[in-house]
Amino acid sequence: MNIKNVNPELAKMETDILYHLGLDSSMNLKATFGDTRYVCMGGSPERALTFAIKAAHELDIPVNDEAVLPIGKTERFALYKVGPVVSVSHGMGMPSISILMHEITKLMHYAGADEPDFIRIGTSGGVGVEPGTVVLSEEALNGNIEPYYELAVLGETKRYPTKLDKCLNDALYETRGDLSVVMGKTVGVNCFYEEQARIDGALYPGYSLEEKMAFVHRIHDLGVRNFEMEAPQFASFCMRAGLRGAIVCVALLNRLHGDQVTSTPEQLAEFSDRAQQVVLNYIKSRER
Amino acid sequence: MNIKNVNPELAKMETDILYHLGLDSSMNLKATFGDTRYVCMGGSPERALTFAIKAAHELDIPVNDEAVLPIGKTERFALYKVGPVVSVSHGMGMPSISILMHEITKLMHYAGADEPDFIRIGTSGGVGVEPGTVVLSEEALNGNIEPYYELAVLGETKRYPTKLDKCLNDALYETRGDLSVVMGKTVGVNCFYEEQARIDGALYPGYSLEEKMAFVHRIHDLGVRNFEMEAPQFASFCMRAGLRGAIVCVALLNRLHGDQVTSTPEQLAEFSDRAQQVVLNYIKSRER
Repeated sequence: MNIKNVNPELAKMETDILYHLGLDSSMNLKATFGDTRYVCMGGSPERALTFAIKAAHELDIPVNDEAVLPIGKTERFALYKVGPVVSVSHGMGMPSISILMHEITKLMHYAGADEPDFIRIGTSGGVGVEPGTVVLSEEALNGNIEPYYELAVLGETKRYPTKLDKCLNDALYETRGDLSVVMGKTVGVNCFYEEQARIDGALYPGYSLEEKMAFVHRIHDLGVRNFEMEAPQFASFCMRAGLRGAIVCVALLNRLHGDQVTSTPEQLAEFSDRAQQVVLNYIKSRER
Repeated sequence: MNIKNVNPELAKMETDILYHLGLDSSMNLKATFGDTRYVCMGGSPERALTFAIKAAHELDIPVNDEAVLPIGKTERFALYKVGPVVSVSHGMGMPSISILMHEITKLMHYAGADEPDFIRIGTSGGVGVEPGTVVLSEEALNGNIEPYYELAVLGETKRYPTKLDKCLNDALYETRGDLSVVMGKTVGVNCFYEEQARIDGALYPGYSLEEKMAFVHRIHDLGVRNFEMEAPQFASFCMRAGLRGAIVCVALLNRLHGDQVTSTPEQLAEFSDRAQQVVLNYIKSRER
């Protein structure tokens, strides 16, 4: 058994087209992906490539950086494979990562990969943590501050729980080295502006600075340490599929102090590196 | 007044960083974007570039195709400007297009553009229409088949209506030429698989083929002609901002007949061209 709870309908299909990846089940996916032990994903194609190259270096896999090329089509996602590591972009938001989760899980199933870890590596708005702090998500909350992901299935709302894997979080924390890492709850929402209580969107949000600050303090008191845009979908999908899943996001700012991302591009790149490094430390500790 | 209902909070900011575009309000945005009359958006960076080049050709703007370069950063979105046309990618799903809508609307505001049309050009799953048919959305429905877009604002759900601009739709229809174009309702959801009643996702969706077909027929009877993943956010944002908005999506398949996208890459490219051509015909008719 490689992926625990895969859709039994798939066994009835002659060929399954993984449309957004540009791959299909008639290809020899086992040859390329059968040995995958880590499926690592980040928002942008650039970060997916950077992570693939870093993983090769950390694992002493001799690759020419220019020879790390995407597999399949690149219009929607960029997918790389280096040793036991898949590194793939997921775009922004839960609908985008949802497409990837369905298709990459089917890919792992067809390839016969043996229960790989699924790890989202991202950026986030910190809540009561300093910029550069890496947050490991223990549980995801939706925009209504509930521990559920909601799907409208044939027009009816269904709710799925959103806990992340405790063992995987503990392992990531243990191998953190000298990086600043905290565990906490993560609010994952569908809007960067109004659902994250920003006041600098294009439209009048209908709340004051005082109401916004009261809300951010309220969720901080509930144990929330960051805002991002993928956690409830990712967490609930991993639980449903029986995957070990983790979310490792660096905070780019502290939302108790403001809304705008004012760090320089160099600082932002260094922050983004930290989240990747936490995951690389973990992978290296397991592959030794 | 260039953008009708812009957030009054913006006037209090010294510099507004449009983080995901890699631009800010201290730049001379008026010089580059002040004459924008059409903000056209599509899912992928490739389509945004293709549309920009086609717009230049249609409008007899002398450009070297290789000289059509993105403006700002390209990690999240790809933004082009040719004559009166902005062509920009929005990624997949409502959270992603929401980020773009906020930042591109602020950009148009800072540039002093005079009430440009906002047009989403995309691909979709047809409902009772043949592959290659272009659907103009009259109204967007959410996954619960309700004419609302929901936002969780400071933890409380708010609902916004989702009608598209009738005058703009009529103008797009009038200039369609010999392209197959229909008007109808559009279901815009947060999941390509389970919220679009597919049975080929990675996880068992909990419904049978018969239940799925009954649902697709039910929405067809309600006047739905396609499924996609951006319409409720886009429509509600345009209504709130006071923008003329339209959604022009080609159907890649007929969901009354199946779930998988089985057309060849060449057919898909030709279908995608048709949605772009409907919009180019309209722009050309106005710029003559």
